[in-house]
Amino acid sequence: MKRIEQLSSWLKEQDISSAFIHSKENVFYLTHFYTDPHERLMGVFVFQHEEPFFVCPLMEKNQAKEAGWAYEIIGYEDHENPWDLISAALQKRGLRLAKVAVEKEAISLSRADMLKHVTNGAELVSAEEKLNELRVVKDEKEIGILREAAKLADYGVEAGAAALTEGIAEIDVVAKIEYELKKKGIQGMSFSTMVLFGEKSGQPHGNPGSRTLRTGDFVLFDLGVIIDGYCSDITRTLVFKNASDRQKDIYETVLQAETAALEMSRPGVRIGDLDLKARGIIEKAGYGDYFPHRLGHGLGISPHEYPSMSHNNDELLKEGMVYTIEPGIYVPEIGGVRIEDDVLVTSDGAEALTWFPKELTVIS
Amino acid sequence: MKRIEQLSSWLKEQDISSAFIHSKENVFYLTHFYTDPHERLMGVFVFQHEEPFFVCPLMEKNQAKEAGWAYEIIGYEDHENPWDLISAALQKRGLRLAKVAVEKEAISLSRADMLKHVTNGAELVSAEEKLNELRVVKDEKEIGILREAAKLADYGVEAGAAALTEGIAEIDVVAKIEYELKKKGIQGMSFSTMVLFGEKSGQPHGNPGSRTLRTGDFVLFDLGVIIDGYCSDITRTLVFKNASDRQKDIYETVLQAETAALEMSRPGVRIGDLDLKARGIIEKAGYGDYFPHRLGHGLGISPHEYPSMSHNNDELLKEGMVYTIEPGIYVPEIGGVRIEDDVLVTSDGAEALTWFPKELTVIS
Repeated sequence: MKRIEQLSSWLKEQDISSAFIHSKENVFYLTHFYTDPHERLMGVFVFQHEEPFFVCPLMEKNQAKEAGWAYEIIGYEDHENPWDLISAALQKRGLRLAKVAVEKEAISLSRADMLKHVTNGAELVSAEEKLNELRVVKDEKEIGILREAAKLADYGVEAGAAALTEGIAEIDVVAKIEYELKKKGIQGMSFSTMVLFGEKSGQPHGNPGSRTLRTGDFVLFDLGVIIDGYCSDITRTLVFKNASDRQKDIYETVLQAETAALEMSRPGVRIGDLDLKARGIIEKAGYGDYFPHRLGHGLGISPHEYPSMSHNNDELLKEGMVYTIEPGIYVPEIGGVRIEDDVLVTSDGAEALTWFPKELTVIS
Repeated sequence: MKRIEQLSSWLKEQDISSAFIHSKENVFYLTHFYTDPHERLMGVFVFQHEEPFFVCPLMEKNQAKEAGWAYEIIGYEDHENPWDLISAALQKRGLRLAKVAVEKEAISLSRADMLKHVTNGAELVSAEEKLNELRVVKDEKEIGILREAAKLADYGVEAGAAALTEGIAEIDVVAKIEYELKKKGIQGMSFSTMVLFGEKSGQPHGNPGSRTLRTGDFVLFDLGVIIDGYCSDITRTLVFKNASDRQKDIYETVLQAETAALEMSRPGVRIGDLDLKARGIIEKAGYGDYFPHRLGHGLGISPHEYPSMSHNNDELLKEGMVYTIEPGIYVPEIGGVRIEDDVLVTSDGAEALTWFPKELTVIS
């Protein structure tokens, strides 16, 4: 298992005794075992030289094996304390851990305390930068899945657009989109599907409700699916029946900003400059105060992952990175427009994985 | 806001300077603001005497206000570090925090480090026991919502049962159930809907897939909805066309175990004894090895919350508690049966909030 080896090599380089990785995303990355989050402990111990082991509830042991985990699995029952079993496993191996890498942003204070307890006070250092560095460049298999996930997101917007009729409620459109996607066999939606009409599209994080569709409404779709453990995330904004000049102006500004950031994407470009480029176009058009969020975020096993596509990010784009570009303008009363693509950095440029048309679609 | 006052009183009693509460569930409990989880910081600072304040991304500030939060809100933009603003807010109030109560099982090590940093090394103690104690007894409004959520879970099983036809795939049934429920205006499913056929029902945590329905299959539904921030969780197992004697025996054993634990529920009963009662019935019938999980779990804002209904829990049932009773028997090859009700403890007994029939339903 290449990823386990990469982590072991890093432990040797950094002289860290072990890594304890337990977030569902990174457990999936390292073990290919995908499971819903729950309060029970599940995690992988990786070492410099010893074989790794995986700790999980006993009733998930077989599924972890079937997912391809080839090393030891320590299964515990509900009445057992998994930390006792971990302590015994470390002792059996004669391992004394002086320094353990953990996901500092994910591990809870109480689990960190347990880990310190079973290691007699190991120093806890961050594993996140290394895991981000590994995960941020997608391999061919991952890109294939992300491409498929993006196609299904396109399909979700198509299904949503097809459902638009005068008087339909936002939540009914959500239901139709998700039904069509479930029939395609997705694992789930990558976040709560957003369908917002009219003035409600002006809330960057609004919730679909009983608002019904009227002539002249913006219709904002923001949705994504999970397949084979990977996420997509698309936003498109359409208009129902007719668009005012003000709506067209807002739309064209967002589209220009989105397109400019996409065209600028290639290996070596500073990530923050993409945000600044899009933001500059929106500011110049007079809507600077109405774009309150970053340009986008990395995309992969998590719907929002490293890197953050914000103006102060000095890191450079690399081939194989996948992220969203999603500028938006939200004007109270009128509503909001956001256009979002999933973008893959190629050897000499970038490719949008999402394909739903970006010219202003007027539903008639 | 009564819940904030209860927390303030507790801080005074315990001589704790402040509580920092940031899990989405407890933020909702304290502020009525419900939002999807994301990586951005959001949390409430509660004090002994000072007014509380709420920290959240700037773009969610208005929604928090609309949800009913009547105190200060500190909104931060993506390029700002919320901990700088928190530090300034504490200084402005002239507060020196020696001891801060946090959700030790939820707060990440990195956020705990930041909190220590802005308080110049405050001791962090657990707020969870207190929050659990507050949340475990539901008030009348909460019970009303949970009752409604349970009804919708019943409706989900009905919709699933109505969709069963020879050859349909598990995921198609999931899609139909969720479509029907979305149309009812639910906020979302409280966890991934489970529909498992035949031998697949034998996996306590199986994933629905392309397995198609055949005569003689067990059909296991496990699903729940979220409405107004509260969850339901029901399991029913049906059989398609005809049931073998072995299937009937397994079913009747689970039903007896479930009913016995339900009938035993009343204020003052030791929680662990409910598990032991159900487990005893299953063991006596010879299926002890096939019931690998606890009896159930608390239910409310989270689909799985305090208390854990496991045999070693010495706490006593109290009026107003809501939890699941869900024994199961999982036999490889044959499949599994689980029956789960949502249960409310009343003044002199208990009431099942879920109503879908529990006699073995044979779909013809």
